[in-house]
Amino acid sequence: MLTTSHRQLLRVISESGPLSRTEMAVALGLSKAAMSGLARDLIDLGVLHEAGTVYGQGRPSTRLDLQPEWAFFAGISLIQDPAPMILCDLGGKVIARIDMPLSRDPQTIAQSIAERLPELFKVHPQAAAKIGGIGIALSGFVDERQATCIQSTLLNWQGVPLADIVREHTGINAFIENDAKAIAVHEKLFGSTRDQQNFTVVSLGDGIGCAHVIDGRLYRGNHGGAGEIAHCTIELGGAPCRCGKRGCLDTIASMNAIKEMARVEGFACTTLSDIEQIAATGNAAAIKILHRAGSALGLAIANLIQINDPGLILITHTEDGLQGLFGTVMQQAIETNVLPRYAGQTPIRLHRVSDDIWARGAASIAAHNFLIGPNTN
Amino acid sequence: MLTTSHRQLLRVISESGPLSRTEMAVALGLSKAAMSGLARDLIDLGVLHEAGTVYGQGRPSTRLDLQPEWAFFAGISLIQDPAPMILCDLGGKVIARIDMPLSRDPQTIAQSIAERLPELFKVHPQAAAKIGGIGIALSGFVDERQATCIQSTLLNWQGVPLADIVREHTGINAFIENDAKAIAVHEKLFGSTRDQQNFTVVSLGDGIGCAHVIDGRLYRGNHGGAGEIAHCTIELGGAPCRCGKRGCLDTIASMNAIKEMARVEGFACTTLSDIEQIAATGNAAAIKILHRAGSALGLAIANLIQINDPGLILITHTEDGLQGLFGTVMQQAIETNVLPRYAGQTPIRLHRVSDDIWARGAASIAAHNFLIGPNTN
Repeated sequence: MLTTSHRQLLRVISESGPLSRTEMAVALGLSKAAMSGLARDLIDLGVLHEAGTVYGQGRPSTRLDLQPEWAFFAGISLIQDPAPMILCDLGGKVIARIDMPLSRDPQTIAQSIAERLPELFKVHPQAAAKIGGIGIALSGFVDERQATCIQSTLLNWQGVPLADIVREHTGINAFIENDAKAIAVHEKLFGSTRDQQNFTVVSLGDGIGCAHVIDGRLYRGNHGGAGEIAHCTIELGGAPCRCGKRGCLDTIASMNAIKEMARVEGFACTTLSDIEQIAATGNAAAIKILHRAGSALGLAIANLIQINDPGLILITHTEDGLQGLFGTVMQQAIETNVLPRYAGQTPIRLHRVSDDIWARGAASIAAHNFLIGPNTN
Repeated sequence: MLTTSHRQLLRVISESGPLSRTEMAVALGLSKAAMSGLARDLIDLGVLHEAGTVYGQGRPSTRLDLQPEWAFFAGISLIQDPAPMILCDLGGKVIARIDMPLSRDPQTIAQSIAERLPELFKVHPQAAAKIGGIGIALSGFVDERQATCIQSTLLNWQGVPLADIVREHTGINAFIENDAKAIAVHEKLFGSTRDQQNFTVVSLGDGIGCAHVIDGRLYRGNHGGAGEIAHCTIELGGAPCRCGKRGCLDTIASMNAIKEMARVEGFACTTLSDIEQIAATGNAAAIKILHRAGSALGLAIANLIQINDPGLILITHTEDGLQGLFGTVMQQAIETNVLPRYAGQTPIRLHRVSDDIWARGAASIAAHNFLIGPNTN
């Protein structure tokens, strides 16, 4: 149905957001006449729609964007128990949400997905007919075809071809991705960083994830390992980490690590906000925990800025309390450890996300593959 | 003379190396007939030539590569005094080399280049007529148009539009680039990493440079600051650095830093090999210097692997001695500080380079811009 030229146009829109016909012609190196023809095809097919007029220099121009109801996508997060399962349209809007039980058995997961899809689809009369793919987010390493989980500690998996198994059970194209990378694709396609070509997501939750968008595309690295800042050594000879090394960022600044340090100190607290409140009373042990964690995260982010000079760092967090001492020390450690001429030059944006973020990211991976084919980085 | 489609084809060859017509057609999403037409144009224009036959599955195929004598490029290094000035062809081969005096005055530099070009050109009858551009490598930050030096400590420059000044004096298109980034482009276009899509160069000399090629292209970062590992904090509260921070990698592992530590210990030595020889006798102070430097560089490279997962790390060095204690400790520190599942998975290649490397890199920047227009990352 879609030609290579159509796909190239969709890639440009997915990387740049809504564009005028003139901007598209420049990006693809085509004549305006050729571009108008391509755009007309895609409007006729219901893929693109006119998304408002922009007034600038010269004549006002109309921007074209994806038609949200052209296709729908299911997204499942295997990070949580129960596992959220959502339905999104091509605008990234969540139109249905249900839960399914988390399992570590790939066949059981695929069967649960297949059993629950009809319930997810019933909110929209065309969802079943227009389903464009299923995306699954998990904690671990995923191969470059976004098909096989190479390794996941949380799921206790090695070399599990989950995408194929889900495809067999559902008859629908499926893709899997690491949790932080799924968030980065979501933010690029549908979220707050649609206009950014180079940015890094740092996903702060029980663990610490990280993913880069470079030149408008997810950069996965050579073994899918780009963004593993959680296992950067921050304290030489520091605390043992579950990965086998010592002093990893994950042992100091993840929410799990912060809460474990608080537990050892005897604090009755279950959230970052609880520890912030204890620190606010002047409690030296709580202050020390937050200082150590904020310094470590800030140093890791400063290293990342020195190495990659991203246009933006988006810190996504599922807990409140990032505006407190922890966040202050982190910001201060970033500025202290980047080249003085760059201090304050890289925007650090805090972004409180809901627990749906991984399922939405998973759906975005399916949408991305549907639009432009598998990531080829 | 060249259309957008021709430029796209040249970009693909510059990113991938020699390709068959079929491979080019796939890369550009064109029919084989359309690709054969494009290739014929470029062969007729003297841009491409047939560079040998490849025997694989199916029919043997002929690979097309750039015709070396289609264009020539001058490259100048402002890293050294005197400043080397070379002439390269489009195959990256050095066909002439002279020196010019180093100056910190942009007008004097441009005038010296203009005065010496005729001498450089006289080695080849067509060099003057076919000159495709001038490239200049320097230590410092360069804007994304590769035209203005934003800041250079070594040259004491801020906002110097050197490319325009050289263009005015010579009438030839000129580009400037940071030293490590110029080496990375050289290695990608003409060097040992032509077949790599994702790699990082760590350039070890008086200072430490670093640059990334991602998805076949130089990744410059948002302010041209990608690759500044020299100012990653490695020792918290460590030695003061000339940048204004403390404990930067540059204060511990650059050749300047190693030799300064040796001088403080009273060693009469001028090269890394000298210090390696003293350490080989069991001298504790010399061993300590090399351990500290190797550990620091290894930790910085491990962080880089964790953050970017490159396909290869190419360590270029202008001094001998990298096979000694320093190199051993560095390798060991890399393996100790990457995720155990990735230990040994990222090839670390040592590459002894001559003092011409920066001038060759500079010429490569000119060639790259000539082929595909300015870098748009």
